[in-house]
Amino acid sequence: MKIYEFNAFASPRRVRMFLAEKGIADRIDFEQVNVPEGEHREDGFLAKNPYGAVPTLELDDGTFISETVAICRYFEERHPAPRLMGETSEERAAVEMWQRRVENSVFDPVAAFFHHATPGLGSLETYQNLEWGDHSGNNAVAGMRKLDAQLAGHAYIAGDGFTIADITALCAIDFAALVDIAIPDDCANLKRWYGDVSTRPSAAA
Amino acid sequence: MKIYEFNAFASPRRVRMFLAEKGIADRIDFEQVNVPEGEHREDGFLAKNPYGAVPTLELDDGTFISETVAICRYFEERHPAPRLMGETSEERAAVEMWQRRVENSVFDPVAAFFHHATPGLGSLETYQNLEWGDHSGNNAVAGMRKLDAQLAGHAYIAGDGFTIADITALCAIDFAALVDIAIPDDCANLKRWYGDVSTRPSAAA
Repeated sequence: MKIYEFNAFASPRRVRMFLAEKGIADRIDFEQVNVPEGEHREDGFLAKNPYGAVPTLELDDGTFISETVAICRYFEERHPAPRLMGETSEERAAVEMWQRRVENSVFDPVAAFFHHATPGLGSLETYQNLEWGDHSGNNAVAGMRKLDAQLAGHAYIAGDGFTIADITALCAIDFAALVDIAIPDDCANLKRWYGDVSTRPSAAA
Repeated sequence: MKIYEFNAFASPRRVRMFLAEKGIADRIDFEQVNVPEGEHREDGFLAKNPYGAVPTLELDDGTFISETVAICRYFEERHPAPRLMGETSEERAAVEMWQRRVENSVFDPVAAFFHHATPGLGSLETYQNLEWGDHSGNNAVAGMRKLDAQLAGHAYIAGDGFTIADITALCAIDFAALVDIAIPDDCANLKRWYGDVSTRPSAAA
């Protein structure tokens, strides 16, 4: 199996960290797609993923699977231990709920800030809206405060165990730091969680 | 079990349609949350979902599950027939990939158009960016063209069978029509698909 990715970006890191937690990263080949030079929009890559996004997984039969969480869930099913998306139906629902909340309230706003309020991908950015970017940056900080509230009562974002929701949040927060959006000083719970999660071996993936 | 929703919106309709396809809608109580009057932002509802969004599912043990797809997956697991999210790991990955693509390329852009380029929720809209709204409307139309291309070779969006990806697309396209974003005339495959899917009994949910 092979994963097409661009290793400086947050979404591919989510998959690498997921695989590292499963202990199966070394079974996958990784091929870099030169996103800053627009390789993801060239015919060769669009034949693999017509939506032009990384990461994209190629199965051994030549099937392509894109979208970060679809890729992660495939590996969760094929390599269940350790569980990163919940054990029971109720746990899986709670993890997916938190995973979506982290995406909507932090991950996606940070991405919007990067693409609209910074040079982003430079000449590849066909449309930028600075005001939307700044608004999204503020939303990302507000999203961090919501996570701080959740972490007042829980070790991890979706409850007592480490899950994909923590991976999404860590990758979002680390990418936010690259564009100068920091965890607010008064978010003690989120900072405690960050200190814990960022020192996991998988965080180096 | 009870679902808190606002029945004029597209996300709650996704869940209702999903339950109708499963034939279990009549086992659930539905309670309306008056979103246009801001009830979803009042303490009573925020205690159920601190992110203030509908639909939100309440399980019989008092647990609350929000986020549309998390709710749908819970019912998929508890009531597997008919499968709406894939049978094998590979099918589930493909369905989730298409479900995400529909969200990112049509559903979410239509929502952004509604909130930014129309009066949206009126006085409840705390921030509007008309240019972003118009750009998102154009993105939604571009997303419909991508679905048209996929439907040139497939009966349904994720392949040969009806899935949650079709539900998300139908709910997005019907909501788009309410804000005057139509399927482009030259999208014959998408129109054929729309004629098929919109006449399913579940579409009336």
